[in-house]
Amino acid sequence: MTSWKDPEIAGVRALLAARQPEPSAPPPTLAERRAAMDAFGEMGALPVGCFHEPATIGGVRCERVVPQGAVAGRMLLYLHGGAYTAGSPRSHRPLVARLADAARSVAVAADYRLGPEHRFPTAVEDATAVYRALLEGATEPGGLLVAGDSAGGGLALALVLALKAAGLPQPAGVFVISPWADLTQSGASYRTKADSDPMITKAGLDKNALDYLGGLDPRDPLASPVFGDFAGVAPVLIQTGSEEALLSDSLTMADVLAHARVAVRLEVWPEMIHVFHAWSGGLQAARRAIKLAAAWMEERYGA
Amino acid sequence: MTSWKDPEIAGVRALLAARQPEPSAPPPTLAERRAAMDAFGEMGALPVGCFHEPATIGGVRCERVVPQGAVAGRMLLYLHGGAYTAGSPRSHRPLVARLADAARSVAVAADYRLGPEHRFPTAVEDATAVYRALLEGATEPGGLLVAGDSAGGGLALALVLALKAAGLPQPAGVFVISPWADLTQSGASYRTKADSDPMITKAGLDKNALDYLGGLDPRDPLASPVFGDFAGVAPVLIQTGSEEALLSDSLTMADVLAHARVAVRLEVWPEMIHVFHAWSGGLQAARRAIKLAAAWMEERYGA
Repeated sequence: MTSWKDPEIAGVRALLAARQPEPSAPPPTLAERRAAMDAFGEMGALPVGCFHEPATIGGVRCERVVPQGAVAGRMLLYLHGGAYTAGSPRSHRPLVARLADAARSVAVAADYRLGPEHRFPTAVEDATAVYRALLEGATEPGGLLVAGDSAGGGLALALVLALKAAGLPQPAGVFVISPWADLTQSGASYRTKADSDPMITKAGLDKNALDYLGGLDPRDPLASPVFGDFAGVAPVLIQTGSEEALLSDSLTMADVLAHARVAVRLEVWPEMIHVFHAWSGGLQAARRAIKLAAAWMEERYGA
Repeated sequence: MTSWKDPEIAGVRALLAARQPEPSAPPPTLAERRAAMDAFGEMGALPVGCFHEPATIGGVRCERVVPQGAVAGRMLLYLHGGAYTAGSPRSHRPLVARLADAARSVAVAADYRLGPEHRFPTAVEDATAVYRALLEGATEPGGLLVAGDSAGGGLALALVLALKAAGLPQPAGVFVISPWADLTQSGASYRTKADSDPMITKAGLDKNALDYLGGLDPRDPLASPVFGDFAGVAPVLIQTGSEEALLSDSLTMADVLAHARVAVRLEVWPEMIHVFHAWSGGLQAARRAIKLAAAWMEERYGA
């Protein structure tokens, strides 16, 4: 058993372990899994003075998150994680609010439709519809950033490919946390990090990929951006934890983006786990990562 | 032929192309190659108020570079590039001075001994001797950063492995530019970037690796850090250009460091070439990269 230098991540791991169901318990239903994710979001504190409200943008349900001190003309489109089958603006509200607060930007979290009820490429279409509507509204491309975590990180990367194909302007930048960018689950880190990732398993993602894709090809770049041609897309920041089964997805994306001549910055945070930013209430590393990402986002807004 | 969006890099490429010898000319001698590198260093301007002086540290010839406004207690050990067979504190003086100035730190550029006269592991021993002497002097490990470019970047990574093996304290951080970290020349980018790298060829590095290593194993981690075990070493920042034959060395190092739970940040700068920082007089991207690296270094000094 590895011992962790960071006492805070050890605490997060203990909390995750305590939440594991009994081995004999039946697996949670999809509804239970979604409810649990939403409940996690309800636990986190929002920055002081931050408010949120429902909105419909481009025909897609969204949540607008407005931090104190948001700079006019900035917009952050956020795509939540949850393996394309769970998660919502509610489950990710504290994370979105902290990012928006740090980047001094209004955020819109898209409640894109999920599998298995709505299969690929519905999520990509919903994300594109919101993006297009934001551009048709008051937002200039230079004032628009896209961010997302896990499946939402993969979706953010799929979105910029879809924008490129549609001839729409790129955003000012793309910030992805622990992206799930390869739905074939072929990364080496499924093996090398199998013992240290407390959340993600290949079997779990195989199941979710099937629920999202139905029988469609996981090598479609809009499903698995690692297979995409990113030449000409916006600069990308990737933040990921060193203990992730999805670590290889980030490393491969950096390689793919670098070869496509995209400005890419990859940060690997030692000892950190999948979407560690979601634990920023208790993890100094998460707060530091958000602060660095916000500095990058502010630079992109100003570019 | 690729067209470049950045007019400045197109200018640098034109300058490099104009310097190419006639195809019928004999290849430059080692002495000519070294003299040409030193002459390049003499061309670059130094920051206003920066001075430099020879020094012998740990028995190794060095050059101390002191920028205006250097903060007491900070030290930057710099290891120059030149494929382990050329380069000097003189060839890299403007680059070292600009980094030192941006990071508000005194720098020491080590004039480590070169191949083929002095073969592996002499360079690693010289770098370690300087590092050890700096620690035995007034420098605390928390005030000491190591940086290097190309072969010097590989040497900086070899140095932290040597420190670990010797039980010496790690520096506060390691900043490497376009590191040559795999002396087996096995990276995919030798192929994928063969047409866009104006400086580096596999044949050239094969020759230099032989001159440095003699018949020794290029898979020794002190020669090729990509084969090393980096668990426990200092945080690493890697900056590299997207058009480098050595791009894979940076990507592989990021992978190796991430798996070893080292805090690593990789930045790939689109359209940029090998050690583009050396052209900071004429490249805005180089000045921006140095500024970002300096912010990272200042954060490490303060950690």
